[in-house]
Amino acid sequence: MAGSDRLRRADCVALDAADDLAPLRDAFVLPEGVVYLDGNSLGALPRRAVDRLRDVTEREWGRDLIRSWNANGWIDLPARVAALLAPLIGAAADEVAVADSTSVNVFKLLAGALRLRPGRRAIVSEQGNFPTDLYVAQGLAGLLGDVDLRLVPRGGLRGALADDVGVLMLTHVDFRTGEVHDMADLTRAAHEVGALALWDLAHSVGAVPVDLGGCGADLAVGCGYKYLNGGPGAPAFAYVARRLQDAFETPLSGWMGHADPFAFGTRYEPAPGVARLLCGTPPVLSLAALECGVETIARAGIDRLRTKSVALTHLFIRLVEQECGGFGFALASPREAERRGSQVSLRHPEGYAIVQALAARGVIGDFRTPDVLRFGFAPAYVRFADAWDAVAALRAVMASREWARSEFQEKGRVT
Amino acid sequence: MAGSDRLRRADCVALDAADDLAPLRDAFVLPEGVVYLDGNSLGALPRRAVDRLRDVTEREWGRDLIRSWNANGWIDLPARVAALLAPLIGAAADEVAVADSTSVNVFKLLAGALRLRPGRRAIVSEQGNFPTDLYVAQGLAGLLGDVDLRLVPRGGLRGALADDVGVLMLTHVDFRTGEVHDMADLTRAAHEVGALALWDLAHSVGAVPVDLGGCGADLAVGCGYKYLNGGPGAPAFAYVARRLQDAFETPLSGWMGHADPFAFGTRYEPAPGVARLLCGTPPVLSLAALECGVETIARAGIDRLRTKSVALTHLFIRLVEQECGGFGFALASPREAERRGSQVSLRHPEGYAIVQALAARGVIGDFRTPDVLRFGFAPAYVRFADAWDAVAALRAVMASREWARSEFQEKGRVT
Repeated sequence: MAGSDRLRRADCVALDAADDLAPLRDAFVLPEGVVYLDGNSLGALPRRAVDRLRDVTEREWGRDLIRSWNANGWIDLPARVAALLAPLIGAAADEVAVADSTSVNVFKLLAGALRLRPGRRAIVSEQGNFPTDLYVAQGLAGLLGDVDLRLVPRGGLRGALADDVGVLMLTHVDFRTGEVHDMADLTRAAHEVGALALWDLAHSVGAVPVDLGGCGADLAVGCGYKYLNGGPGAPAFAYVARRLQDAFETPLSGWMGHADPFAFGTRYEPAPGVARLLCGTPPVLSLAALECGVETIARAGIDRLRTKSVALTHLFIRLVEQECGGFGFALASPREAERRGSQVSLRHPEGYAIVQALAARGVIGDFRTPDVLRFGFAPAYVRFADAWDAVAALRAVMASREWARSEFQEKGRVT
Repeated sequence: MAGSDRLRRADCVALDAADDLAPLRDAFVLPEGVVYLDGNSLGALPRRAVDRLRDVTEREWGRDLIRSWNANGWIDLPARVAALLAPLIGAAADEVAVADSTSVNVFKLLAGALRLRPGRRAIVSEQGNFPTDLYVAQGLAGLLGDVDLRLVPRGGLRGALADDVGVLMLTHVDFRTGEVHDMADLTRAAHEVGALALWDLAHSVGAVPVDLGGCGADLAVGCGYKYLNGGPGAPAFAYVARRLQDAFETPLSGWMGHADPFAFGTRYEPAPGVARLLCGTPPVLSLAALECGVETIARAGIDRLRTKSVALTHLFIRLVEQECGGFGFALASPREAERRGSQVSLRHPEGYAIVQALAARGVIGDFRTPDVLRFGFAPAYVRFADAWDAVAALRAVMASREWARSEFQEKGRVT
């Protein structure tokens, strides 16, 4: 940093010049003239995925056709991606299954968890948890009839852990604020009352180191298309700690999770270990793209990524305070780096319009109701200078009251 | 056909020359020197999918990034594919949801069906049904505890329809033999005892006309990667008759099936109609490929495709009998065209090795345990001359006892 307290763009450029992760940006295809701060919603395109998708389409599907299941290893693709992904979350390769969507995996794990804790019919979660996790829990409760879903405020989680709780289900990094739960501590609290802990890693994996094994976590799910850069709607993953696998019964017992799928027997026999979490035939094209994303992130190393992520979000907060002090923003993310994921969220009553106005200037963040502006800092490709440019655009939008224009006020679909 | 009873290759070539669907083959990328008779397992690559996948990858994902959900219509992609697909199965566009895998959709529909028939806890299906349908039913029964899955032989279905049956679940075209169930008749029989009928169209859609509406069918699922040519592991679909939709409760209540997903509310509210069958974020790359496959098939028209399919399978049966009479094959598929799907299955004790030997000669069929050789005739791209060439190869393999070679006897994974 410069000697002066006040940061300049040149200071940010200097940080990029000194950043040993800076060359990793070249592993991604990114549009010119865009500052992309929405990798927490959809990660960027890994350059290698361009050729890989062409090859899986033209050679593997087009030329080798059905033979590709063996000849090109499609049948092992879910396990291959799982093995690449496992070290990012403190798991062994044989504790992770890559399959389906996060929502579907939440269903599998919640249902399986309740069966591992017979007699306990309560699920505890947080009111602010990512909605699809809550929706899926409601769907399971509706199906089973006797399950009690208890949603409590963040501060009330420990108090809600009673003797009838089968599962504590939480998202590690809050999607709105980026606040990080203490996984080890809350897992321990769940275990103390005999419950299992299920963690949603959607906003962690690939940007925040996770140590499922070290925390004693039981179950986890996560998303392939955010910081893993697997492409829109990429397959998700599920984690089941090895000690629970033999007894784990998935409700979605499809043929890809069968011990011998090509025997075409009439009785379901679960595959050994975590492979039983597979269900139907996997979407190979999407899975091939995910493999490229996970490879790219895994090779960079999660600790280096985290170090850069913390520096980026810290810089952004400092710049917002320096440049946008009088505009009515409140910091919604924790100021302490260790409690913050890879995003910075601000609150502002005009948040929606401000996000639209920023997008028109080529700065892509997103908005979450009611008043949250989210800025994701994917450390694999976001630069320190991007933080400067985003804040400069934010200052310009606010100083000129650009956000008040009718085109930015119009509510469309937000993603 | 030639004047002589005995067919020659030239007769088959003449059939191709007279075939008004012949040019449709050019809409697919197919390898040189291969006779592909496994489109019932993995359909061929539609030529338009090559450019489409490049575009969705490089422009939509790579350049437009998160904005593609609106700007490039990703959010409407499932409904767009559903609308293209609906006429192939006698459904309205608002009765079909494209999502997840066939297995996951079976789970949704079976669970939802039982809730529509409270007090009825039996599911009837066929012992020979496609295994994943049975596995998923077993998984649901295991989860719910009080569901009775009754598997009966094909001839015993009507007899199994008792007053406690909630759902009759069948596959329209049998995956081993290609035999077609009488959908109207069996649906009526289910309704007579107050049960719902759930049809798996995996081996029908895109090759055999289906009239879900006309048959009064209640629920259906189907596969995107067989005759729809959607690519390996393409998303599947689910059908819910309009009259059942308002009351239909999906157990997999994910955010994409929410009435207002981007409100991020805490309570699940089902989307109106069939859209509630969506669950998690769809795999956009795989879905884009599926759109190309469905477009190609829908444009050709299912009735023309069926006419050609019947002619192809009829020809193949006739040629096998003419050329391979003394080699111990038994026809496993119905001889009557109206009872036969788009495949011809033969039984032979050496079936596995024969299929391997054929593949070495560039004729790709597949094998299903214990002794079934399957030959799929995707009418969109299989030629009449292909039927000749396949039978000529079969004759050569049998006459030379090529199948007895050790390399063909070795059991590997079969797909």
